[in-house]
Amino acid sequence: MKILFKNAKILNLDIKEGIINGNVVVENDTISKITTSAINEDFDLVIDVKGNLLMPGFVDTHCHSPMTVLRGICDDAPLDEWLYENVIPCENKLTSEDVYWAEKLAILEYLKAGITCIEEGYFKNESIVKALKECNFRARVGFGPTTKTSNVDNFTLLKNEKAIIEESNLIKSVCFVHSIYTINEKEILECVDYTAKNNIPRSIHLSETLNEVGDCTVKHNGKTPVQYLEDLGFFDRQTLCYHCVHMDKDDLQILADYNVSVSTCPSSNIKLASGIAPIYAMQNKGINITIGTDGVASNNSLDMFKEMFLVATLSKVSIYDASVVSAREVLKMATLNGAKALGFDVGEIKVGKKADIILININQPHYYPQVNLLSHLVYAGKSGDVYLTMVNGKILYENGKFHIGEDENKIYEQINKIRERITKK
Amino acid sequence: MKILFKNAKILNLDIKEGIINGNVVVENDTISKITTSAINEDFDLVIDVKGNLLMPGFVDTHCHSPMTVLRGICDDAPLDEWLYENVIPCENKLTSEDVYWAEKLAILEYLKAGITCIEEGYFKNESIVKALKECNFRARVGFGPTTKTSNVDNFTLLKNEKAIIEESNLIKSVCFVHSIYTINEKEILECVDYTAKNNIPRSIHLSETLNEVGDCTVKHNGKTPVQYLEDLGFFDRQTLCYHCVHMDKDDLQILADYNVSVSTCPSSNIKLASGIAPIYAMQNKGINITIGTDGVASNNSLDMFKEMFLVATLSKVSIYDASVVSAREVLKMATLNGAKALGFDVGEIKVGKKADIILININQPHYYPQVNLLSHLVYAGKSGDVYLTMVNGKILYENGKFHIGEDENKIYEQINKIRERITKK
Repeated sequence: MKILFKNAKILNLDIKEGIINGNVVVENDTISKITTSAINEDFDLVIDVKGNLLMPGFVDTHCHSPMTVLRGICDDAPLDEWLYENVIPCENKLTSEDVYWAEKLAILEYLKAGITCIEEGYFKNESIVKALKECNFRARVGFGPTTKTSNVDNFTLLKNEKAIIEESNLIKSVCFVHSIYTINEKEILECVDYTAKNNIPRSIHLSETLNEVGDCTVKHNGKTPVQYLEDLGFFDRQTLCYHCVHMDKDDLQILADYNVSVSTCPSSNIKLASGIAPIYAMQNKGINITIGTDGVASNNSLDMFKEMFLVATLSKVSIYDASVVSAREVLKMATLNGAKALGFDVGEIKVGKKADIILININQPHYYPQVNLLSHLVYAGKSGDVYLTMVNGKILYENGKFHIGEDENKIYEQINKIRERITKK
Repeated sequence: MKILFKNAKILNLDIKEGIINGNVVVENDTISKITTSAINEDFDLVIDVKGNLLMPGFVDTHCHSPMTVLRGICDDAPLDEWLYENVIPCENKLTSEDVYWAEKLAILEYLKAGITCIEEGYFKNESIVKALKECNFRARVGFGPTTKTSNVDNFTLLKNEKAIIEESNLIKSVCFVHSIYTINEKEILECVDYTAKNNIPRSIHLSETLNEVGDCTVKHNGKTPVQYLEDLGFFDRQTLCYHCVHMDKDDLQILADYNVSVSTCPSSNIKLASGIAPIYAMQNKGINITIGTDGVASNNSLDMFKEMFLVATLSKVSIYDASVVSAREVLKMATLNGAKALGFDVGEIKVGKKADIILININQPHYYPQVNLLSHLVYAGKSGDVYLTMVNGKILYENGKFHIGEDENKIYEQINKIRERITKK
């Protein structure tokens, strides 16, 4: 399969202008050519981009996709009421089939919003991987001690869990240690040992709330969560930490020293009143900053445009300095930085990269005057502006229509039914 | 003209469920009937809403619409560089015709985002009013001492400025005193006197930045901007104050005592690093809180969905309490509260109200499961979900097509040209 995208404004964050006018060729799953002059070749499909924007799909580095089924289940409530009275009781009722449908709803939402690659962290991975593979979607899927273990030893459990994920071009796995407040020290150390021996990267929720930091310092002789994990050897291998809201200078230095990547999730952090992450300070330490939506129960949509706007603007207001964290930097966080953190060869429109490509309709009022497009994307862009989404060379969404081998109305119906069942008193 | 909207989910913030399934009849410019059962009458037009959401258009209470032409002109820069090196030099080059086209671009953006009524504050009102009237758009337009006055007395100037606005069902006027740091005390007092004698409401930028508050307290014997204006008699008549970011308890009490309305502009406030307004504290004082986008140069799009999300979530994070400022409250701020502040009989779907109506496509992934629609609107909704916008009984936007008597491509072309000219060194 050989596809030509012609007459595109191609996003390129390496050059000053940020945009190249030209054409992009995709052969099978790979970007094979980028030219500024006309191409005289045969193609299976020619897409006239008509001067619209062509850019890499967004990489969303922190997701609990099946939580789509819990959308709006409890807003405007304190964390305890939200989690223990609403989220967890409903999650406990979710069957494997429920998780499969909820994952598919999330994939619809990702595709419509131009998200082409995620880091997944939930349970019932057999359902998640089935949905991802059926839809041809790209993900790094977390496995690990998120549920209570039986009397089987942890190594066997982890191996079994990892085997479910079946790696491929589109699917990778990561050891997802939920957090220091849900997983005990013995289990964390077993994960550290297992992943070190088996060459597996690690992910964890980290320093999301003041409570987490406070409890940790009380319990572990004044150590912050970052210091505590460093002492356990957690950062010795490739690691991605979600949230990282409450961090002091020493914490940031530790993350920088170990080349740890951060997934910042601003909409979740402000909606749950957790706080505002110190993104500018992280930049100054040279930390690889990526962006995540978190799950729908806490944010309440899967929308990297919303997150990009928030990363840039919350960083400014939190230190009373409008000049920090630029649109260009945020676009890189939402694409290439995320790809690097997850280990996929995507996140840029470059020859040789996997073809995760989205088209943005800039022939709309909020993209005029048509200059400074990087700024427009971050500060005025909306997920509804995406009109085509390609993952690994396959067009999965175009102008309101999904091509994922499943009628979206069937997914909607299933989701409504599941929600009704799990919220019945 | 008699129009039926059938099979709608009608937003109604007075009832617990927030939604009524039914039909809405519009006769000429007014909502004439709301029923839950089928209607057997003749109509000029029947619109099948197909179970989508029908709600009042958004009322945007703080705008500088023609700043659309300055979109993205200078981001990620300190306020002084933004204002004095970029915004003002370009504004100085704007002709009356430029302002006319830039106002029209803003109207396109408002309509596409479901905004049906604004409070306008800019200069060259003759161009603004011409564009508004041609498009059949609803606005309260500010006039006042925003530019340097000649040797004509201020009363004559104000009267002349007011006369330009020609009030109608769709257009009202307000005396817009820019701010205490741009208008001197003598001029403020003249406006206070003129508006008192002529029964005209007042608007002003107020306590937007820490600098404004600090400078005022130094200059005026420790008085905050609110205390200073109270002493000048500014709040004696119906008043709307924009921003109100830095306010202490006494300030809020003064606004409450005088029934002053507030227009909060969160995206502008965080992008320009001004701060986060104390919305929850305002609620506790019973202040009428409304929402504004501010101008595009500072925010950078005209999108009440973005603002609603921010009002709810910034209020939570700023006081570390996820339970404050609910979706329902925010929806009321964005509709009815704004209508009250501007004095238009809109902002609700009720019999007798003027027909400012929008339709929201909820047959999309981010509205599923289809429960808790108030939450979905505020926390997951996007301006791109609006597919029909009616102002005063006329459909001005539907499914990507504008009906404002002007080809949008002509507007886009003009805007690109103007931008090129005003930014030429």
